[in-house]
Amino acid sequence: MKKKIIGIDIGGTTIKIAFLSWDGTILVKWEIPTRKEEKGRYILEDIAKAIEEKMEHVALTKDDFHAVGVGVPGPVQLQVGYLPIAVNLGGFGDVNINDALGDLLGIPVITDNDANVAALGEMWLGSGEGEPNLVMFTLGTGVGGGIIVNSQIVSGFSGSGGEIGHIPIVEPDDDVYVKCNCGAYGCIETVSSANGVVRVAEYYLAHESTQKSILREETGKSLTSESIYRAAQLGDTIALKTVHYAAKYLAKAMNILSVTVNPSCFIIGGGVSKSGDFLLHLIQEYYGKNIFSSAVENVDVVIASLGNDAGVIGAAYHARSIHTYGKK
Amino acid sequence: MKKKIIGIDIGGTTIKIAFLSWDGTILVKWEIPTRKEEKGRYILEDIAKAIEEKMEHVALTKDDFHAVGVGVPGPVQLQVGYLPIAVNLGGFGDVNINDALGDLLGIPVITDNDANVAALGEMWLGSGEGEPNLVMFTLGTGVGGGIIVNSQIVSGFSGSGGEIGHIPIVEPDDDVYVKCNCGAYGCIETVSSANGVVRVAEYYLAHESTQKSILREETGKSLTSESIYRAAQLGDTIALKTVHYAAKYLAKAMNILSVTVNPSCFIIGGGVSKSGDFLLHLIQEYYGKNIFSSAVENVDVVIASLGNDAGVIGAAYHARSIHTYGKK
Repeated sequence: MKKKIIGIDIGGTTIKIAFLSWDGTILVKWEIPTRKEEKGRYILEDIAKAIEEKMEHVALTKDDFHAVGVGVPGPVQLQVGYLPIAVNLGGFGDVNINDALGDLLGIPVITDNDANVAALGEMWLGSGEGEPNLVMFTLGTGVGGGIIVNSQIVSGFSGSGGEIGHIPIVEPDDDVYVKCNCGAYGCIETVSSANGVVRVAEYYLAHESTQKSILREETGKSLTSESIYRAAQLGDTIALKTVHYAAKYLAKAMNILSVTVNPSCFIIGGGVSKSGDFLLHLIQEYYGKNIFSSAVENVDVVIASLGNDAGVIGAAYHARSIHTYGKK
Repeated sequence: MKKKIIGIDIGGTTIKIAFLSWDGTILVKWEIPTRKEEKGRYILEDIAKAIEEKMEHVALTKDDFHAVGVGVPGPVQLQVGYLPIAVNLGGFGDVNINDALGDLLGIPVITDNDANVAALGEMWLGSGEGEPNLVMFTLGTGVGGGIIVNSQIVSGFSGSGGEIGHIPIVEPDDDVYVKCNCGAYGCIETVSSANGVVRVAEYYLAHESTQKSILREETGKSLTSESIYRAAQLGDTIALKTVHYAAKYLAKAMNILSVTVNPSCFIIGGGVSKSGDFLLHLIQEYYGKNIFSSAVENVDVVIASLGNDAGVIGAAYHARSIHTYGKK
């Protein structure tokens, strides 16, 4: 019988853990809190303890498992053999997760950026099934990204591969041109993430003060990307202008990715993607315009289908490849 | 003894062919003209005939060869198994070069875009030696590009991977915003290629008509990118403005590539790269500014070292991988 695999998705608040069969069926999944105190020094021990307890509970041992895949927020620096040597997680510092967690569990561990492994998950069992070349945008608080080429994550030489939220695409003279958390100005994240959309709406609400808008009723409670997308679907002028602005920049980034990595499919995930077809139509209005046409023909733009499970599923898929990588 | 390999670089005017040892030493190389008449229907037969004659001449047979690698101008559409099914070459039409040339020679053939295989050549034995993640810009009449990730060419799903000359990065309100040969507006190629640089210089010569410039003496004979780069090195104001403009957009594209494919090294090749260190300094003045810093730290920008041999060497390297690909 094929061995089982473990997928772990380390987030800022909770850590998702799952045991999966070799073909990707989730057998058991659960969450533990992310203990960020003392620079997150307990995180890996917490994970190891949780896994060992669960193994005992379901009567499995480490010999039943092929490997462990881990997704972490922030760039993961990789070396030959794919060992992360620097990871940021609430001050987590330079930790070689592969070695440290591998030693605690006695099972091989492979780690990459969370958005990268989510993309791998969607390629394996989600909206990108069977597409070895795809790009995933995760539209949440920020804009995460994962690029898959020839079925492999593009991590890049210093772990900044797929950081597509930080493409600096907004021009200085555009309506909303602000500094991103990464330190640069005009990143896609500043206008197309959940926070970015709120920022753009606030700009238009302030600068078009005579324009009626349901969004003005949001004062008092705080404006959210959900309320903005909802208002846009109701035809609200300011909200429509906002979501078009966000979609235009996403589509511009997708055009650039089409002439560089040329995926067959773009997958939109994350909280903002709950607007589903509405969001897709907006993006499709801009994608493929003013770009080398053969790069964008027959390219699909779809919504992610694995939801919150993309991380553990993708991490598990990554774990399946661990011997291939080890041989390099 | 390891088998030999054949590298072929099909250009619009000549076809370069080389026999190489397994480790990349060029044993013999020569050129034949590219017969473009009748939509290039004689090209593959000409190549096969030239190779067979040369084999006889040097007393080798097809059994001495592992495989043949081919670089062709224009995107190469790849399918599972890496077979090109559509190639443009002076109207060359839809030809499966791998099958057609493979049948003629009785040796396995693998084909990709010429700029892609040149990048592979520089990775193997050129300026990018030992760097599995790199991006090469070929600054010639146009701007070609090759992206290498995990030592593999990024061809993309429809062969438009690495078409970095067609990143539409110039904004409509910028000094020079024109239509590219690809049909889109504002591609890097329109301002940073040899032709692009001439276009930009002509713009500044016309719009700053009171500014003295050595380039004005070029009227009568035609302005070239060489003369512009030479004038810039002499401190000519218009020429300097022109090459800064070209370098700024190249660097912007490099910034974007750093947060998407995150190479350890950018290699500048092609005719314009003969300006060497001068060009590198110009690019470095702009590269790494206003971008997610960890994506650009410790990234090298270097001039290509294989010159015109990059194509045959890269094609030969690609040929070495043919069994690996075949197994997929």
